[in-house]
Amino acid sequence: MIKLSEVDCEACKVDAKKLSDNEIANQLSQLPDWSVYEESNINKLRKEFKFKNFVEALAFTNKVGALAEEHGHHPDILTEWGKVTVTWWSHKIKGLHQLDFVLALKTSEL
Amino acid sequence: MIKLSEVDCEACKVDAKKLSDNEIANQLSQLPDWSVYEESNINKLRKEFKFKNFVEALAFTNKVGALAEEHGHHPDILTEWGKVTVTWWSHKIKGLHQLDFVLALKTSEL
Repeated sequence: MIKLSEVDCEACKVDAKKLSDNEIANQLSQLPDWSVYEESNINKLRKEFKFKNFVEALAFTNKVGALAEEHGHHPDILTEWGKVTVTWWSHKIKGLHQLDFVLALKTSEL
Repeated sequence: MIKLSEVDCEACKVDAKKLSDNEIANQLSQLPDWSVYEESNINKLRKEFKFKNFVEALAFTNKVGALAEEHGHHPDILTEWGKVTVTWWSHKIKGLHQLDFVLALKTSEL
C-alpha cells in the first residue's frame, strides 16, 4: 500500500522546482546555523546538533526520522557520540527544493 | 552515576593497544564486507548495510546504538533512505582496537 506521505512529497518528483542561487541565499538567511555546501555538484543543506551523550544524540536522530517519514522526504543523518549532523537535499532534482528548507526549520524546532 | 559499560570500555583508554597493520589485515580477513580506510591518519572500519526503506534503516541504526551503549563504545552511524553506514574506530588511540573488530562482527550479526 502506498502511504499518503510518499505521494505527498512534491520534492521527490523529477520535475520539481529546484531553488535558484538567489532563492537559496534568501532562504538561508532565515535559517540560523544551517549552511549550504556543494557535493558532487549538488547543493545540500546541513547543520550539526550537539548533545551531552550518545543516547540523547540517537533520540534526536529518531525524532528527525519521524519528521522525515511524516513528510515522505528523508535526509542523511549522521549519529555520533554527542553529535548529530542532518543533511537535507532533494535527490530527484539533484539540488535544494523549498521543502528542504521547510524541513530544516522543522528539524531545528524538534 | 558512571555506568558499568563506560568503565568497561578498554578501547576508550589512551594507553589501549592499537592494532598493527598485520593484526588489522588478519582481523579483516575474518570480517566479510567490512573495509579499513584511512581518514586524517586514523584507520577506521566501515561497512554499508542495505535496507528496503528508511524505516528499516533507522531500526537498524537503533540496534547498532543499543549495541554501542551496551559496550560503552560508539561508532559513527550514517542513516540514509535504505542504507546505514557503520564506522568503528577508537577515538582515544586514534586507530583500531581489538574491540572495534569484535563490535563490527556483532554489528553484522544484528
